[in-house]
Amino acid sequence: MKNTLVCIFLFLSIPLFAEDGSRLWLRYEPLPELVSENYQQIISNICPAGSTETARIIEQEFVSAFENMNRRNLKFSKIITTNSLVFEIDTTIQSGYFIQTKKIKKGTYTSISASNDIDLLYGMYHLLRLMQMQEDITHLDIHEKPVYDRRILNHWDNIDGSIERGYAGRSLWDWDDLPGKISPRYTEYARANASIGINGTVLNNVNANPLFLSKEYVLKTAKLADIFRPWGIRVYLSVNFSSPTALGGLSTSDPLNVEVRQWWKDKAKEIYALIPDFGGFLVKANSEGLPGPQDFGRTHADGANMLAEALEPYKGIVMWRAFVYNATSPDRAKQAYEEFMPLDGQFHKNVIIQVKNGPIDFQPREPFNPLFGAMQKTPLMLEFQITQEYLGFSLQLAYLAPLYKECLDADTYSKGEGSTIAKVTDGSLFSQAVTAIAGVANTGNDANWTGHHLAQANWYCFGRLAWNPDLTSGQIAGEWLKMTFTTESAFVEPVKEMLLESREAVVNYMMPLGLAHLFAWEHHYGPEPWLAIPGARPDWMPSYYHKTDSIGLGFDRTVSGSDAVSEYFPPLSTIYNDITTCPENLILWFHHVHWNYRMHSNRTLWDELCYKYQDGVDAARKFQKVWDKMAPFMDKERFEDVQGKLKIQTTDAVWWKDACLLYFQTESRQPIPYEIERPVHDLKKLKSEKPVNPIP
Amino acid sequence: MKNTLVCIFLFLSIPLFAEDGSRLWLRYEPLPELVSENYQQIISNICPAGSTETARIIEQEFVSAFENMNRRNLKFSKIITTNSLVFEIDTTIQSGYFIQTKKIKKGTYTSISASNDIDLLYGMYHLLRLMQMQEDITHLDIHEKPVYDRRILNHWDNIDGSIERGYAGRSLWDWDDLPGKISPRYTEYARANASIGINGTVLNNVNANPLFLSKEYVLKTAKLADIFRPWGIRVYLSVNFSSPTALGGLSTSDPLNVEVRQWWKDKAKEIYALIPDFGGFLVKANSEGLPGPQDFGRTHADGANMLAEALEPYKGIVMWRAFVYNATSPDRAKQAYEEFMPLDGQFHKNVIIQVKNGPIDFQPREPFNPLFGAMQKTPLMLEFQITQEYLGFSLQLAYLAPLYKECLDADTYSKGEGSTIAKVTDGSLFSQAVTAIAGVANTGNDANWTGHHLAQANWYCFGRLAWNPDLTSGQIAGEWLKMTFTTESAFVEPVKEMLLESREAVVNYMMPLGLAHLFAWEHHYGPEPWLAIPGARPDWMPSYYHKTDSIGLGFDRTVSGSDAVSEYFPPLSTIYNDITTCPENLILWFHHVHWNYRMHSNRTLWDELCYKYQDGVDAARKFQKVWDKMAPFMDKERFEDVQGKLKIQTTDAVWWKDACLLYFQTESRQPIPYEIERPVHDLKKLKSEKPVNPIP
Repeated sequence: MKNTLVCIFLFLSIPLFAEDGSRLWLRYEPLPELVSENYQQIISNICPAGSTETARIIEQEFVSAFENMNRRNLKFSKIITTNSLVFEIDTTIQSGYFIQTKKIKKGTYTSISASNDIDLLYGMYHLLRLMQMQEDITHLDIHEKPVYDRRILNHWDNIDGSIERGYAGRSLWDWDDLPGKISPRYTEYARANASIGINGTVLNNVNANPLFLSKEYVLKTAKLADIFRPWGIRVYLSVNFSSPTALGGLSTSDPLNVEVRQWWKDKAKEIYALIPDFGGFLVKANSEGLPGPQDFGRTHADGANMLAEALEPYKGIVMWRAFVYNATSPDRAKQAYEEFMPLDGQFHKNVIIQVKNGPIDFQPREPFNPLFGAMQKTPLMLEFQITQEYLGFSLQLAYLAPLYKECLDADTYSKGEGSTIAKVTDGSLFSQAVTAIAGVANTGNDANWTGHHLAQANWYCFGRLAWNPDLTSGQIAGEWLKMTFTTESAFVEPVKEMLLESREAVVNYMMPLGLAHLFAWEHHYGPEPWLAIPGARPDWMPSYYHKTDSIGLGFDRTVSGSDAVSEYFPPLSTIYNDITTCPENLILWFHHVHWNYRMHSNRTLWDELCYKYQDGVDAARKFQKVWDKMAPFMDKERFEDVQGKLKIQTTDAVWWKDACLLYFQTESRQPIPYEIERPVHDLKKLKSEKPVNPIP
Repeated sequence: MKNTLVCIFLFLSIPLFAEDGSRLWLRYEPLPELVSENYQQIISNICPAGSTETARIIEQEFVSAFENMNRRNLKFSKIITTNSLVFEIDTTIQSGYFIQTKKIKKGTYTSISASNDIDLLYGMYHLLRLMQMQEDITHLDIHEKPVYDRRILNHWDNIDGSIERGYAGRSLWDWDDLPGKISPRYTEYARANASIGINGTVLNNVNANPLFLSKEYVLKTAKLADIFRPWGIRVYLSVNFSSPTALGGLSTSDPLNVEVRQWWKDKAKEIYALIPDFGGFLVKANSEGLPGPQDFGRTHADGANMLAEALEPYKGIVMWRAFVYNATSPDRAKQAYEEFMPLDGQFHKNVIIQVKNGPIDFQPREPFNPLFGAMQKTPLMLEFQITQEYLGFSLQLAYLAPLYKECLDADTYSKGEGSTIAKVTDGSLFSQAVTAIAGVANTGNDANWTGHHLAQANWYCFGRLAWNPDLTSGQIAGEWLKMTFTTESAFVEPVKEMLLESREAVVNYMMPLGLAHLFAWEHHYGPEPWLAIPGARPDWMPSYYHKTDSIGLGFDRTVSGSDAVSEYFPPLSTIYNDITTCPENLILWFHHVHWNYRMHSNRTLWDELCYKYQDGVDAARKFQKVWDKMAPFMDKERFEDVQGKLKIQTTDAVWWKDACLLYFQTESRQPIPYEIERPVHDLKKLKSEKPVNPIP
């Protein structure tokens, strides 16, 4: 009988219209009657924000959202009365917005005030968020301001419409059609970003095609900038360092060459003539084969400063990436530090060094990059990866707020305890002319933007943390779930828990205990820890990272090893250096650990490794169970799509577990503990079959 | 430290020579010193059995085995002394053999006695079995005789060397090379069969090519018969009922036609001239498109009796198969009974009706065929399938003794309680001129004979049960494991348990609760319960068997359904007819059960179904764990081969579970209970991908 009821409930509760996820967290579904009645009492008319394009957006967005949620038309007024929502420009406000319930004769009104219309827009989205979450808005007294000035998405989108590490379709930018033909998605994109406070976008891949700086493409970019501007989004471009040669026809791109410098200045002038609020350049130079100042015997500072000078008249910035490594170093994890620390203090003040969260490359777990806190005379910005290059593409659930938080909250000890990465990058510990944070976007032209419906949460949480890194992962997950699905706690609580566990699950079934880069060649989906390509760069082979042998597993980065530990401030350097104090979730990152080393669980390393992989698989299976219970809370389309993805996740978690354990077992030569599920894959077969890129 | 020890043990204990499984249970490995010393004291010389070819075999086999096991040469003697092993022909013995410890002056000797040398051979293998199992042979007093006269393997081998439903390579018979070139495997085959008491072999497929009766092929068959004869193995042939037309050039094969009858008599004469102990014919007629007497308006009895008359002068028998069904019947399970019961008493006395254990077709579980016990005036013989057509081919472990025992021990109630199938077919309840039992062989030219190392146990247990159906599955498993691997109880006990659970595991993850025939089209590997081929025979579609709909699942064979229950004797007919008394492991065979019907577990049918599938998967996973512990007890080759097969089994168990639950869920419209692992397969994808035959 119970089952019958569940069943009926399930089938009745499915809405009748199709759901493709395109509405993201901006769904504005009708609210329950009681909640709505309350909101209608508090807000029944609005005093618009002015006559700018942004003011028009605020008015349109709020009215449309309010009327959808409350099934009630708003009145418009220029006079503040009780039950008004008033958008006020107040130039005395330094930053951010206020949302306040204010008293007048006979009652109250709600005020959103800020010094400019973009901040008003943010305030408006804040209020809408509260309503979507069915929060009490009777007595509001909110002041919000963003922690980072520049909150930027990096799109690794190519000129041909492909996206490097993109798993949600093709690029959102139809370069061939621009500037003549305008996709409605450009505005939707800007709107989604504005709703979470993102205010900048680098349109093209860091592996940059010089053509993006051609007049033709700058015109296209200008068109996008025009569309994004009222939403508070500035555009930036990735630039190829050899553009003066490749595009300008010069014989060199040497940053100290006068003609080269002039070429960049002319280019900047050209860009700003078309895009007066152009944000600046993002540069990947002397990295993975890309050109850079070192090709001419110059330093990163020489290169960055040349560009900075060109942009400086227009208040543009240079985001210069620290993602550098060369093939011959015995420890890739040390190289960004080695290359950039000597340059500290040599960069112009409109240069900011963009540093990936970890010293290698967006692995499921890395320690933080030791440049943070160390490079004190140069502004640094974090680069997170939102697209799940190393966390299962858009096929697997990995809610990334916990990864971002782990880094933001990490204590560098650079100015004593409490010198978290958030603090060393937000200007509060070291003075910075610019503060910024970047995330490599997971968006594409898929209807639901991110491929996996639940991966929308990663776009969302990046924006929210860029605004306020003190938010918790759970808070953000809660917001997103309530807005994207339902506020019912029978849905929100279990799914929030699932989201919060999901990144650790991926770590466990892919690379627990500080392992890194066991990925399949090139496309990075699936395990290939045994990979050995004769003649290939050793630092592109998994064995470079896991260093397994008959003794044990892991990379010795202690003082008797590569000494990467010494790039960290004390006491971290000591903590990491000592196997007994090193956090176990990084133990194989910093130590070559004996197979029979006793872990805190009192298991040997080998046994612990087996348990961790099993934990990962078990978690994936649990996610399936949790999700299957959620059918009554949403449309069939999204439910089944996620259900299907979770099947892939479990299947591939087992694949990871089997591949890694079977491979490492050839060195550990120890049995898998009896409690652990046996492998179902065959090592020989796995080795003989190149993992297929599931999203080529 | 513990793990290190296990590890060292594991690697030291692997023998240095390769093991391909070709030695079956006749390995004769050196015995532990203490055991061997004892055996050497009891037997130090032998008095051979005579000068026949079989006597020579007995001598050679025993001496070679004894010397291998005990590392000690035997002496030969014609005089009985203490410590002799004496083979004695004693024509007063009616059947079987005696093994006895006999007293003489100054001590004892061991005697194996029988009325003929073939029974002596069986006695010799019995003694060797005791020694392989390290049993005490100090005081022996054994009398064994077989329960069935004819213990026969059926080979579904084709003239082109292929095997229908064969999963261990190609046919053992090299027809093209015979009779000139003789494979050593012919003798090895005969030896293996003799060692477990099998005394007959039908060389060719029941879907018989008429060419097998040509002079050319009879000469080939005669050569095999010559090789098998000293091992006590008679050859039989499957015959095509239209051979007179197809081979003899007659215009008809009508069994009442004089020329046809003469053709068969001439053919029998020709065969017996070359093979004086030829066993007889096996016939599949008017079944699955094969010709038969009904093509001429005659009955099965007309057809069988014509052949019986032809064979009668030579004491040959006809084994006429009752595996018949036509496309239009509403219940295939009833048809053998309907077609054969009217003919009871009409068959010649050298005809025996060969009846598959279940009324459908070798499913993982069926109730017994109701012809057993019902057809009381006609000899009946059981046909088991040793080859795992419906139980995972040679890729999955399914030890079949429990399936055979379930049938042999089933009570038909035909002469009141205790009328088991063993008793209604062994001549003890109904007088039978012939008693016999057949098993469809799982052998092929693979080095290890049966594809899966552990499938050798099915060949073995069929032979043992054909000799003595009172043996338990556990006894037989114990014998086989000790001879094939080791007598160490740390190996024998857990692996025996695994074998004993294995068939039920297959039932659970394929077709629990009495489900049947959900198999993939044609090749029968993998699930395809949704299969619906427009225009195809309905009784070849799974829906014919599972009859799922929104109400429930299962085939209503009660009196208000197809009334198949009434083909059983009371009280079975009543027990099966009543859903509350019907055994739950057959409930969906006999009833269309409501999805919410409460099972004994107090779960609904749907939930119970889910739990059963999960049980199957869990069992497969457990088998992997158990096996992984067995590495120290055997060679790497067999260990890893079975380990690999068990991986396939678990993988495919999950496939079965997912496919069936997802498919049935479309009708039950109920959630899978939370405790049950979620599907990892996608129904739509499963349906779109035709299951591949893994052993084409």
